[in-house]
Formats: sequence, structure tokens, C-alpha cells
Amino acid sequence: MTGDKGTGALLTDYYQLTMLAAYYELELDAPAVFEFSLRRLPPQRAFVVAAGLPLLLDYLETLAFTRADIDWLGATGRFHASFLEALSELRFRGDVDAVPEGTVMFQDEPIVRVTARLPEAQLIESRLINIMHFSTLIASKAARCVLAAGGRNLIDFGMRRAHGAEAALYAARASYLAGFTGTATVAAARLFNVPVFGTMAHSFVEAHAVEADAFANFARSQPDNVTLLIDTYDVIAAAQSVVALAQGGTRVAAVRIDSGDPNQVARDVRRVLDQGGCQAVRIVASSSLDELQIAKLVEQGAPIDAFGVGTRLDVSADAPALDCVYKLQEYAGEPRRKRSPDKATWPGRKQVFRSLDARGQLAGDVVALEGEAQPGTPLLVPVMRDGRRLSPAEPLENARARAAAGLGSLPSTLRKLDGATAYPVTISNRVKALAADVDARI
Amino acid sequence: MTGDKGTGALLTDYYQLTMLAAYYELELDAPAVFEFSLRRLPPQRAFVVAAGLPLLLDYLETLAFTRADIDWLGATGRFHASFLEALSELRFRGDVDAVPEGTVMFQDEPIVRVTARLPEAQLIESRLINIMHFSTLIASKAARCVLAAGGRNLIDFGMRRAHGAEAALYAARASYLAGFTGTATVAAARLFNVPVFGTMAHSFVEAHAVEADAFANFARSQPDNVTLLIDTYDVIAAAQSVVALAQGGTRVAAVRIDSGDPNQVARDVRRVLDQGGCQAVRIVASSSLDELQIAKLVEQGAPIDAFGVGTRLDVSADAPALDCVYKLQEYAGEPRRKRSPDKATWPGRKQVFRSLDARGQLAGDVVALEGEAQPGTPLLVPVMRDGRRLSPAEPLENARARAAAGLGSLPSTLRKLDGATAYPVTISNRVKALAADVDARI
Repeated sequence: MTGDKGTGALLTDYYQLTMLAAYYELELDAPAVFEFSLRRLPPQRAFVVAAGLPLLLDYLETLAFTRADIDWLGATGRFHASFLEALSELRFRGDVDAVPEGTVMFQDEPIVRVTARLPEAQLIESRLINIMHFSTLIASKAARCVLAAGGRNLIDFGMRRAHGAEAALYAARASYLAGFTGTATVAAARLFNVPVFGTMAHSFVEAHAVEADAFANFARSQPDNVTLLIDTYDVIAAAQSVVALAQGGTRVAAVRIDSGDPNQVARDVRRVLDQGGCQAVRIVASSSLDELQIAKLVEQGAPIDAFGVGTRLDVSADAPALDCVYKLQEYAGEPRRKRSPDKATWPGRKQVFRSLDARGQLAGDVVALEGEAQPGTPLLVPVMRDGRRLSPAEPLENARARAAAGLGSLPSTLRKLDGATAYPVTISNRVKALAADVDARI
Repeated sequence: MTGDKGTGALLTDYYQLTMLAAYYELELDAPAVFEFSLRRLPPQRAFVVAAGLPLLLDYLETLAFTRADIDWLGATGRFHASFLEALSELRFRGDVDAVPEGTVMFQDEPIVRVTARLPEAQLIESRLINIMHFSTLIASKAARCVLAAGGRNLIDFGMRRAHGAEAALYAARASYLAGFTGTATVAAARLFNVPVFGTMAHSFVEAHAVEADAFANFARSQPDNVTLLIDTYDVIAAAQSVVALAQGGTRVAAVRIDSGDPNQVARDVRRVLDQGGCQAVRIVASSSLDELQIAKLVEQGAPIDAFGVGTRLDVSADAPALDCVYKLQEYAGEPRRKRSPDKATWPGRKQVFRSLDARGQLAGDVVALEGEAQPGTPLLVPVMRDGRRLSPAEPLENARARAAAGLGSLPSTLRKLDGATAYPVTISNRVKALAADVDARI
């Protein structure tokens, strides 16, 4: 029901509009530089996978208040007509530099830098964070599952308990980007070309008087994709039904288990299947899985070929939010910062320089001013100028390959799911000197 | 960018479509009864506030596969043309019984009951849970904040870190329903008529060379709503600037503090304001607040008049998901249940009967079969028949009043934010006997 009314220019915090009204009256519209970055990582998280940039650029390219938006704002009686007229003409005409989607990033590092007239750069704050935060959050959670799964397949099963429609869609996209095999969410397959997978629900079994009939009927209807859910009543009896079905000539691709101790149940089921000559039938496990459980099952040698990861992926259960911000760094050519306790920011237009060691593994980053001479490769690149993308959105597969390369470049100290060593991110002396200058001035 | 493509009939799990294809071929389309309920509450949560019903009914009333949806499904090559033709004609023509929005509920209790032909009742599972879960999750979190705040104002500040657009919009709606004063999310104000509030960002202060100029400029632009953010640099100096502004004749409604120890900072700021004759200027606090911090600040007697609650509300940080399910209870007149370990369900069409004590406080619920004679008031009522609402969507204020009454009826043992006594929910003997019957049959 939200439709465009819910995702347009009014999807912002009210204070953006009151600030814009003041800026309009004060004619404060010089260029401003804002940066989106992580203030600090959750203790158990060693890195993030930056995601969401193409979604952000879509938003910026199409940002406009409709006539209906303006009329609604006018009806609140809180804004002058001349400001609302100006607002109706506002488009995002600024510049964006950003790290490419799928890049591994750390705290204190700018991920997106926006340079635009102050009202444009300010207005977009709320939705920019909303888009970048969630995709980065889920790509990072999914990346941990990928590290844990040791090459086994991972499918996003989380739509039902994702936080609304957009969360479900963007979670499917972000988890695929981070290395998942696909999603169960059909609309995400359509929108983002993510491979789609599915099994069956308990209700399908329950709608039949006899479980084996349910299996046979499903296999007849979906011969190319026979994954049978075997834990509705008695998982061993169900596995025996699967064997009988396969021995009768029906091709069964996989069985799914969704309850009990997955290690023990998978071993029991594997034995029944193998004894019945069904060595080729794979086992899919689901039910409240996350990266820690997956790592444990892999370590236990559980005979599980694929994991369905649902709720704990789509809500990022161990850390449902990241402490990320979008902060003013420079206005009208002058560096700016806030000094609030525990929330101070580094001023200036910044760049991240990344060094790799001889084996191609991450060796350390420097956050420096743009244009500083620093060792390493600069991560932020121009992606939008004057409100227009510099190139068409890249295929999602490219970002997926970048994430895979990034995960491959993590040293073992950063690959731990808990207790990883903090990655060295150095703030350059020129950034620190600039902060001291700003403090001396204000 | 998701638009209707992201919230239509394809926003479902892939297995719903493969099951529907099998049902179509098997002509399995007898009436089915499904119930949505909480399997178990998070340990620290004593109750939920049911929310989302009008959003669900909107979805059911408009559910249809568009021609583009059908064409896309056809292009996957996974479905027969005759099934896709049938799918294009599918509408939800079933019945819904549910507890009214804003009702306080507990585990094992049906919140929504759907009676429809099996394919219709099955297809809607994923989005039904997606809608009801999130609104109930946030209304419940917000209710805990309301219990903690002891009558102080609460504003939803969470849009930026909510999980996508719909989460931000529905969180604003659900928190208002649960007793919040309003939201900062403009689009939610427009869509759901939730009161909208805002202050200013640090960037507004930083865009001025002198903080006091920023305050004066904002006050001139927004004379009816002067809330000034005072922690960008030095909170005491900023409070003194506010006093000077007020003494010069400018009406200042409130100041906001967003860092440091809120109790101490609020006391320091209150003193400066009071000494400057600004007793009427209120103090708004924000920054990583949740119900536990609010309760602590209220207990400390912190002079805070309103709380802005952001991320931890919109992501329900202590419990970002509820263990809720939508399960088949009856098919073709026969009761059904699953018996999976730790996930067994109670079969049959059920009703919740609620008893109050002499003071009007909740005394105990019985989950019984529909039509059973039980003491107490039945909570589920008919809301949709043959796919049509029985009455227009009620004003959100009605649900808000119901939630307030529900919170007022919580005994003190249930009002605790942690360590509350479990509320007595009894499963009737007839439900238990029915479960034994089903088990004996299957």
C-alpha cells in the first residue's frame, strides 16, 4: 500500500524540511561535503561489506517532490509558499564519490562522499543512511555466513520476518552480493535477477492424509526441483518414504530438515538415504540458523549440503543496526566537524588508501585528505557528477565478484566470527591537524 | 525503486508458487484454516501489542498477479501455462477473523485466523507474516517505552536506521498506535496521519560560523517550532546562547541534547535555563535510547520532558524478530498439526477467551476451540468475509486508544521491563483432545 507515496521525497525526517526552509530564507546554498561512514563496528564484527550504492544512485537520480507532495506540505500550514515553490524545483545535482559495491570496509572510513549545494546534500541524509545502512548491514551479516559455510550453498529464506517489503527485497539482493547462492523471495528474483529457490511447507504435507502421497504428488508436479520437507511428523519415517519414492524411479534432488539438532538429524537422515541407494540426494537444513550455528555444523562435519538462512540473516539478529552516520565535513570551502562527546568527527574531504601485503591480503588502511600522497590504492571513486551517474549500474554479479575477492583478501585474524583482531585504520596527520584547526576556530 | 513490483503478489516465497502449482494439478482446493500466532515470546518480553491488521487487509483486498507478473513467471519456464492462467485469476476470497489492532496478546494465542480455499490461504503466508510480524514487533517495543516513560512524550526518530522504507513507515505507525506522541518521518505523517515533529541537525549548526547565529536563524525561520540542538560543541555554552536568545524576546520551545550522560547533561542544562528565566523551555533527549535507558532516566528524576527514540525502536534492538508462525489448523474439515520437535502446533479453529479481575486487570486467557463455552470475552472477531472487509478501516486513533486501555489493564507483574511473571494462557482440554486425535490418525 505504500507505493510511491512511501518512497519518494517525503521519505525523510521532518527536520530536513525545516532546515531547508531556513536555508532557503538565509540563502545558505554554498557547496557542502558530507560523508557516510561507520562510527564504530559492533564488537563481534571485524568488517563490513559496503552495499546499496546503486539503490542510492537510483534515489538521487529520481529525487523530486511531486505536486501532491508540495500540496500536502502546503496544507500543513508550516511552510511559506515561496519555499515550497523552490522545493518543487529541487533536484539532486551534486557529485558522489564512493567505494564500489562489495568492497570490504572498516570503521572511521568514508564509504560515500556527497558534494552538493547545502540544501540538496542535507535533504538526502535520512534516505541515504536508510539505504546504505541496511544493505551494508545485511551484506556484512551474509558475508559472515559465507565465511562460516566453507563453500556450502546458502539460500536466503528470510522474507517473512524481514522488516517489511523493502527489507525482504534488499536483503535478498545484499546476501546474494555477499556470496549467497540465491533467495526464496520471488519478487527479489524478478527485480534484481537473484537466483530463486524453494522447497515445500509443512502445510503441503499436512494437506495430504498420507505423507508419502504428499511427496509423490509434489515430485510429479515439480520434477525438475524435488526438494521434500521431511520433518512434519517423524523424520526417519519420512526419509524412508523418500527412499521408496526414489527407488520407484522418481528423481529427488534434496530433502529439507527444519527442526531438532541439525547435526544429529542430518546424520540419521544421511544414513537412511545412503542405505537406500540415495547417495545423490542432498540435505538442506534450516531453522534459526546463523553464522555461528553454520560454523559449528561445518566443524562437526554434519552432512549438510546447503543452509537456508532466514530470520537471523534478514534482521541481522546479532547486530540489527550499525552505528553509521552522514556528517558535514566541509561547507563553503571550510572544514567542519562536531565535537560532541564520543561522537566527534574528522573534518575535510577524505579518501581511504588501502595497502595489501605480498600475498594480496589486507595490510592496513589510511584515512587521509583527498589528494594527499599516501601509500596504497584510493578506494573512493567518482560515481555521479551533477546528479548523473558516470556509468550505468553495473551487473550485480560484478559486485558479487568484488565481495568474493574482498573476503578472499581478509587475513585469518579478520576471518574469525568472534574475537577478530581490529584492522589497522590510521588517521593521517593532516586530517588530525585539520581537526585541531577547526577546533581552534570555533 | 521497488514500487509496486516489490509489494505485489510476487512478494512471496518461491515455494508458495510451486505448492500452488501442485495444488492446481491435484485439484486440492478445499477450505483450509490457518492461524497466525506467536510460538514463544523473547525472555525479556511479557506480552505483545497486536498490530498491522489494516495493512494486511489492504494486501488481501488487492492481491492479484498482474499480466507482467504472469509473463515473468512464464519466462522462467518452470510453470505450466494452464496453471499460470489460473494464477492470473486468483483473488483472495476468504474469511479473516482477528483480534482488533492494539490488543495485548501472549504466546500460543491466535492473532489472525484465515479460512479460505487452500491455494489462497497458502499463497498469502509469506506476506501475512511479513506484515503482522513487523507491526506487532514495533508496537510491542514501543509499548515498553511507553510503560517506561511515565507519561513523558516519545517521538519516533528511527527512519534512517530502520530496515528500508516500509519499515520506517510502519514503525512510525506502530509506535504511534502503541502510545508514542508522533514521528519525525514525514511520509508516515502523510500516509497514516501520525503527528510529525522535528528539531535540527548538527550540520545546521556547523553550516554557520557562530552557533548562536544558527539558533537565531532557525528561530526566525520556524517561529512556531523552535527546538534547538545544543550539543554540537559545548552544551553549556550553547544553553547560555539559548538563554540569551530567549531573553532577547525569541520564543524557544525546547532544546535537544544528543550526547553525553543524558541525566547529568539534562540537569546541567536545566540549571542554566532556569537561572536564565527559561523555565518554560523543555528538554528533549535522544541518542541510542531504549526502554531500559528511559526507565533509568525517569527513575533518576532526570529533567527530560520528551525522548526521541530512534534506532533501537525501529529495529527492535533487544529482539529484532518474534518467533511467530502461520500454520495449517484444519483442511477440508479435518484438524491438522505438525509434530516437529519444539515446533508442534495445536490443531483446530481456535478462539481466545480473556478474563479480567474485579479491577479490570488481565486475569488469564484460555485458548479453546471456536464455539467452546469458556469464561471470558472472545478476542477474535470477524473482519473479512469472502475477501471483503466487513467495515472500513478504523481510524488509527481507535487502535491507539485500545492499546492504551490494554496497557492500563496489565497487572504490575506484567509491566516489568525484565523478569515479568508469565501470564497464564491455558490450552483447553478439548484442544488437547483434538491434538491427540490427530496424532492417533496420522
